[in-house]
Amino acid sequence: MKDLIATSIKYQQGALSILDQHQLPHQEQWLPCDSTETMIAMIKQLQIRGAPLIGIGASLLLAHLAEQGVSTTTLRTEAERLRATRPTAVNLMNCLDRMLATLDNEGPAALPRCAEQLFHEDVTLCNRIATAGAALIEDGANILTHCNTGSLATAGVGTAIGVIGAVKQQGKALHVWVDETRPLLQGGRLTTWEMDRLGVPHTLICDNMAALLMAQGKVDVILVGADRIAANGDFANKVGTYSLAVVAQYHNVPFYVVAPYTTVDANCPDGSAIPIEQRNPAEVQGVSGSFGEINWAPDNTPVYNPAFDVTPAKLVSGWILDTGVYRPEQIAAGALKNL
Amino acid sequence: MKDLIATSIKYQQGALSILDQHQLPHQEQWLPCDSTETMIAMIKQLQIRGAPLIGIGASLLLAHLAEQGVSTTTLRTEAERLRATRPTAVNLMNCLDRMLATLDNEGPAALPRCAEQLFHEDVTLCNRIATAGAALIEDGANILTHCNTGSLATAGVGTAIGVIGAVKQQGKALHVWVDETRPLLQGGRLTTWEMDRLGVPHTLICDNMAALLMAQGKVDVILVGADRIAANGDFANKVGTYSLAVVAQYHNVPFYVVAPYTTVDANCPDGSAIPIEQRNPAEVQGVSGSFGEINWAPDNTPVYNPAFDVTPAKLVSGWILDTGVYRPEQIAAGALKNL
Repeated sequence: MKDLIATSIKYQQGALSILDQHQLPHQEQWLPCDSTETMIAMIKQLQIRGAPLIGIGASLLLAHLAEQGVSTTTLRTEAERLRATRPTAVNLMNCLDRMLATLDNEGPAALPRCAEQLFHEDVTLCNRIATAGAALIEDGANILTHCNTGSLATAGVGTAIGVIGAVKQQGKALHVWVDETRPLLQGGRLTTWEMDRLGVPHTLICDNMAALLMAQGKVDVILVGADRIAANGDFANKVGTYSLAVVAQYHNVPFYVVAPYTTVDANCPDGSAIPIEQRNPAEVQGVSGSFGEINWAPDNTPVYNPAFDVTPAKLVSGWILDTGVYRPEQIAAGALKNL
Repeated sequence: MKDLIATSIKYQQGALSILDQHQLPHQEQWLPCDSTETMIAMIKQLQIRGAPLIGIGASLLLAHLAEQGVSTTTLRTEAERLRATRPTAVNLMNCLDRMLATLDNEGPAALPRCAEQLFHEDVTLCNRIATAGAALIEDGANILTHCNTGSLATAGVGTAIGVIGAVKQQGKALHVWVDETRPLLQGGRLTTWEMDRLGVPHTLICDNMAALLMAQGKVDVILVGADRIAANGDFANKVGTYSLAVVAQYHNVPFYVVAPYTTVDANCPDGSAIPIEQRNPAEVQGVSGSFGEINWAPDNTPVYNPAFDVTPAKLVSGWILDTGVYRPEQIAAGALKNL
């Protein structure tokens, strides 16, 4: 397989490595990943994360295993193990389906080419999304975003953050409100880091402050990513997205979901069919990172910790995809069923 | 002054001490407080907190200083310094006004009796609030609350948590969803600790999960405290309260504010006149507690950190005060102006 370099994943001289996002922003440590066990652990611990990127990461790993002579049977088993790590994000399933179809049709020797294609396609999709989305954003906009959807979440420039980067590149003035995104702080740790690298003026807030900003008229538009978009336009994204959508509607703030077509699951009729991953209570009882593990709640405090929530299509102003921006009427007319 | 004992403040054998809430729940450390400097630092660092309790704490300190022979002039200066520590909570101002009126009318020797009265009155007010509020809560209710409003925030059983304790005492089944309340985690650290002590079944969530629970029909009622209630029923409370109120209205979940009459500022016409305290960016860049200080954001990340937000009266189902439960019609008719 040829060398492939992205912000947080690289395949170089026959070795796959991952920028450990759990340690960001204070430590930039690249970790080798040469087995399914390692990749599964890295996905579970969010050392590699972002719906598009985990699909690419899993595919690169399978291609690497194929290059090392792992049997077709084992590759199939490993693919199924990888598939089970994140039930919500559909990009992982989509990537693995393409890898498995290639395996069936052309054999293991074809996997590296398929993985390379998936990588390059993700880069291209991000660029198209960025162009489509940036056209919507006016000069001087205050954009609010949730979680992390940038070059740490994709092989390319990102989805919602890709749009933000394109707005900046077009020379428009902008300012970004960054939701910290409890419990795992992808906003506070990662989006702040990306905004800094992009040179985009930004302000970090706690998730519960977004409503107050909207009441003050300080948010012009909300851009969020997605882990799975159902055929009717409902979508799953990082927990807290639904709350933002409700509050945005109350304040008449436009609310856009930003994703590649690979996030659309045309077989999923609506949001109620999207499985939601429940995660470890320790994530809500405290926080962990490069500084170690902190627990601030009383020991054994009962916790509810869904990683995602579902936002119904009726709260969405538009779907910014690589194929363009879709309005509610188009989605209602079935636009997502025939992408 | 006679001995006065509450959950997180005590005046015993002539010495005032404070349970350090910054160290809770993992360390229960009582700290002496014998000067205005110490009390101001403790209020600023939320070692003592809760709108009613800081009023009591400041009054006990002034009474203690009076007993030690501090001059009337100095007592007046110290009162003004204490008043300036928390601009939003009106209880502190109300308590200090009563102490200063006593000083003017009866001299320093009368201050201990006034402080004792304020302490006992707060206990009584909490009990009345609890009785009034508990009558509204049905058997088996799922209650959601924000921040901490219990025996750590008052000299008595608390406001919103006082109601929860009374519901439990009445033998009704109940379950409490505890918002963690970023950035200072009064829910995650303190309300969980109080729920545990009260034996109330509870589940800790991140603030951004409340909307999802409401969409699932898992929240029957929301009870929150207040730092200041304006004459028209608008009120300031811990940041995140406004977001909850908007989301509650969308889901038709009853939303009550719970407070003693001492939280009502009849001179404040509406929420726009309530000053909002801005706090240190470090609180949003990370977290601190008994475990030390953690910073997870990139260094120097710009932050917005209002400690409170204002919820307009139109989003409130009822005002649970010590004098009873007031409905929107009554508030609109001016009930808060003549308490």
